[in-house]
Amino acid sequence: MDVAIAGGGLIGLAVAWRAAQRGLSVTVVDDAPGTGASAAAAGMLAPVTEASYGEEALLRLCQSSLARYPAFAAELEAASGLPVGLRTAGTLVVGFDADDVAALDALLAYQLELGLDAERLTPRATRQREPSLTPRLRGGLAVAGDHSVDGRALHVALLAAARAAGVHLVTDRVAAVQVAGGRATGLELAGGGAVPAGTVVLALGAHSAGLPGAPPLPVRPVKGQILRLAGAAGLLSGTVRALVRGRHVYLVPHGEGGLIVGATVEDRGFDATVTAGGVHDLLHDAIEVVPGVTELELVETLARWRPGTADNAPLLGPSSLPGLVLATGHHRNGVLLTPVTADAIAELLATGELPELAAPFTAERFARR
Amino acid sequence: MDVAIAGGGLIGLAVAWRAAQRGLSVTVVDDAPGTGASAAAAGMLAPVTEASYGEEALLRLCQSSLARYPAFAAELEAASGLPVGLRTAGTLVVGFDADDVAALDALLAYQLELGLDAERLTPRATRQREPSLTPRLRGGLAVAGDHSVDGRALHVALLAAARAAGVHLVTDRVAAVQVAGGRATGLELAGGGAVPAGTVVLALGAHSAGLPGAPPLPVRPVKGQILRLAGAAGLLSGTVRALVRGRHVYLVPHGEGGLIVGATVEDRGFDATVTAGGVHDLLHDAIEVVPGVTELELVETLARWRPGTADNAPLLGPSSLPGLVLATGHHRNGVLLTPVTADAIAELLATGELPELAAPFTAERFARR
Repeated sequence: MDVAIAGGGLIGLAVAWRAAQRGLSVTVVDDAPGTGASAAAAGMLAPVTEASYGEEALLRLCQSSLARYPAFAAELEAASGLPVGLRTAGTLVVGFDADDVAALDALLAYQLELGLDAERLTPRATRQREPSLTPRLRGGLAVAGDHSVDGRALHVALLAAARAAGVHLVTDRVAAVQVAGGRATGLELAGGGAVPAGTVVLALGAHSAGLPGAPPLPVRPVKGQILRLAGAAGLLSGTVRALVRGRHVYLVPHGEGGLIVGATVEDRGFDATVTAGGVHDLLHDAIEVVPGVTELELVETLARWRPGTADNAPLLGPSSLPGLVLATGHHRNGVLLTPVTADAIAELLATGELPELAAPFTAERFARR
Repeated sequence: MDVAIAGGGLIGLAVAWRAAQRGLSVTVVDDAPGTGASAAAAGMLAPVTEASYGEEALLRLCQSSLARYPAFAAELEAASGLPVGLRTAGTLVVGFDADDVAALDALLAYQLELGLDAERLTPRATRQREPSLTPRLRGGLAVAGDHSVDGRALHVALLAAARAAGVHLVTDRVAAVQVAGGRATGLELAGGGAVPAGTVVLALGAHSAGLPGAPPLPVRPVKGQILRLAGAAGLLSGTVRALVRGRHVYLVPHGEGGLIVGATVEDRGFDATVTAGGVHDLLHDAIEVVPGVTELELVETLARWRPGTADNAPLLGPSSLPGLVLATGHHRNGVLLTPVTADAIAELLATGELPELAAPFTAERFARR
């Protein structure tokens, strides 16, 4: 086997698919593909509204990935025969008090400085775009370039496309990275046995740290709780992000009347509890932003973990262990960064060269500090 | 068969158990026993805190049933070998604004007038009894006589006790009351076939109206949404009912760390949707009353229907169709009224006489109006 990939989430499968397209033989190991962070992803493709000062290299990576999305989605839908729910209606950001509005202005200024497409709107103009928004909002910002995709549909399509491209899936838990002669030589399985491989890719998301055999990685679980609602057909045309008195909430329509409301950001280790407080805050803020949410059906509540890093950027490329490649630490940008991560890691696997765009994101940056 | 009972909820099974104890042969028909209103019951035994002016006959019935509960629960636990979770810690009623406190005073006056045990408490004394209550409450009322029972455990125990007493359970949907010669003669099953019986008991809860063969009954579904939380061990010693700026919420501890928060009261027909607004309001009010609820796990949300009547009282005893006995329409008091209903209907089935206590609750009262 040329490549063994630990983790069959969005990142692991997309890397597997792209690597297989380049003629490599690939095995993916995951005991329950699709039940990790992708199950709780809202699917926002939002490099602009997620942008922060001082993260320009990450912004470039995100923008490059967003630019790849239309072709990536089209190719994936053709290869899998399945829809991925790409929506290009743009994103509205709205605010409720003076501080929220000041934050909108700061975001606008930053976006214009970066040459990005963003437009400040009066409350009236904001509500003309999304009439279900509350009249109590104080201002808005339209970001045409921020889109969304259905995270669960994307996972299903990637699984089908990877299989169609010849990727082998082993349904077992990864127990360790096999190491021989100072080099990764495959994956050990919890159920016994191993997958020997020329190169190992670590794509275990929030579970990437602490894998026996692998070097220590600065990845921690960042808990997020989200809600899935139904009955929202016609309620919103695109994603709405809001600052409700300093608290962030987003509402992302998907499928036929589906609406995802997210997400809490909690440093609580691997705690999977859906809490009364988390659900309350999400419902409260969503209803404040779009009062009609009251009438929607609450279909599902769940909690998962983003793979967080100290600088909110992913770990891509070679690790300190020869033969072990990293594709993890995507934090809040896992769905967005799937295409560029897959392209960059597949390039590394096929040619030995990590594309320049991904170079700032090797694990070495933490060793240097 | 002496008796065929339509409905294997708390009422149907308790009637079956008591009737079998009196030597009658009994069959209960239900396609999914335990999945109706009992699944969403908080299990409050609260004739006093539920008491309203002008419902004195209902209050007497409720108090009589509450008085039967300790012996009923003990006998049921002995017969089934299963716990029913009777809690006798009493109930606290708390209020938040001036109107809420005025409502507490009115409730107190009514309770004292009825000779019931109730004690008005300062905010400080209220919190001494339940330290997890918010310091923001404005007043309290302690009602020692209002208890609780675990509605789901009660159903499981009744099913076991009824079976042990020789009750036959048919797992099928009731399609109609069989009528011959102007008299109920059994139950027709949706899956085909019938259960012939000397007397038929209608105990279908919210589904009691509109059964083919039965006379029209003034029972309508009254939707209630509740939440089940976990991790609440030690949070509350007994039931807390609250008026939060005019809105009612209750928190009922059960089992090991379980907490039920209820309930919405909605006239929406047979709509089983768990709504964002319903869950939000319950969480909001519960957190307002006991801030520590924020940290609890949200385990389950569900919606069921109470069998409502025009005067909030049950329909007990003979109907306009000879051979058809009613045991339905218990609205918010189904769990509480289970023992007295079972005793009264079993007495009627065994002797032909409805006890005086139940006489005000025949369906005739609606015909008279």
